[in-house]
Amino acid sequence: MNLNMCKKAICILSGGMDSTLTSYIAKNDGYDVIAVHYSYGQRTQTKELESFRKICTRLNTKKKYEINIPFFTDIGASALTDRTIDVPINGIDDKVPATYVPFRNGIFISIAAAIAEKEKATAIFIGVVEEDSSGYPDCTNSFIHNMQNTINQGTQEQTSLKIITPLINLAKKDIVKRSIDLQVPLELTWSCYKNENTACGVCDSCRLRLKGFKLANIEDKIKYTNGEL
Amino acid sequence: MNLNMCKKAICILSGGMDSTLTSYIAKNDGYDVIAVHYSYGQRTQTKELESFRKICTRLNTKKKYEINIPFFTDIGASALTDRTIDVPINGIDDKVPATYVPFRNGIFISIAAAIAEKEKATAIFIGVVEEDSSGYPDCTNSFIHNMQNTINQGTQEQTSLKIITPLINLAKKDIVKRSIDLQVPLELTWSCYKNENTACGVCDSCRLRLKGFKLANIEDKIKYTNGEL
Repeated sequence: MNLNMCKKAICILSGGMDSTLTSYIAKNDGYDVIAVHYSYGQRTQTKELESFRKICTRLNTKKKYEINIPFFTDIGASALTDRTIDVPINGIDDKVPATYVPFRNGIFISIAAAIAEKEKATAIFIGVVEEDSSGYPDCTNSFIHNMQNTINQGTQEQTSLKIITPLINLAKKDIVKRSIDLQVPLELTWSCYKNENTACGVCDSCRLRLKGFKLANIEDKIKYTNGEL
Repeated sequence: MNLNMCKKAICILSGGMDSTLTSYIAKNDGYDVIAVHYSYGQRTQTKELESFRKICTRLNTKKKYEINIPFFTDIGASALTDRTIDVPINGIDDKVPATYVPFRNGIFISIAAAIAEKEKATAIFIGVVEEDSSGYPDCTNSFIHNMQNTINQGTQEQTSLKIITPLINLAKKDIVKRSIDLQVPLELTWSCYKNENTACGVCDSCRLRLKGFKLANIEDKIKYTNGEL
């Protein structure tokens, strides 16, 4: 008997490249995947949800939750959730960019913890990337470490949950390579912050993705308005 | 010039006795109060929202957020959000009761942190009570301490937020007494887990409230179906 058959993981799955690889890693590690998607009023939410659903089908997830949390647009304060703030397209610097959504991963992981407690899952997988990223404070090892302690303290004694972040120290090119190894359908994933039809190629998220593919020497099969950096 | 005039606090305000006193304490401590209310599919959400609005008017809050998060009913696993689980009415024991909502305060405080970051508030007030309570794991000092660290790590560097829990070590009778001192309109507050018209008097929340009034020797002016314990 394979003991791993009983393990359940909550996988936070936006439909982007990082979260999709992360969900595939969970499956590859023997977990039954319960995929959780958040529609939070982000510019590309229709496209992301479509990607999420296709990926869930391909990955054969055990269950999926589509969580609708439009209150993010009431809060705003981010280029992703407030249409009056432009998505930056001029490249990544060392400041927290305008696409930062206040405490988004704190909220996402908290909701995932509640679902995990209900589902008796033992792990939450999240595809945060610290090194080769936009510099969001809620994508760091120290944040995840503290969130882990908070969940341990704030849930029932019988709940035993580990936050697993397999990509946190990876460079984007390694994310692309690992995705190829695990046969992740990268052509179904969506990374662009701006557009839902043809990826812009110049927002931070497109730039990081394109850089990853380029350095990994792999072709990105999705369509871009501006194909080359 | 009174420097306190610039301080902003996010006050998580359900409309119950504890959160209402907590918001009054924030105001009394010189904060501009930004009240945040959550409708999460709980049985008494209409009544709680009504109480919240009346209390905001009375307290003259600077701003208010009414956050709708019905996904809690998709998660369920609590007598408050799943109508097929009965609200316990036989008194409080030392187990986590069926009214526990998975990681509710983790989610509530995370959303409050996002609002605080947007509003440039410096404090989040929450009326959790550890001692004289139902025994929820997300109402403890250790949980709050960890949540504080998580917010420090997961928000922007210029965000400086403190979680303030003025009631955490108080007994219910002291909560009633302090409320009288601060002229909190207790008659506008709603505690019952079960009913929206006449409080049941026998759910844990009614029992704790009634015990507090009794020991403080104060009359509770709201109407109960079962007035005496």
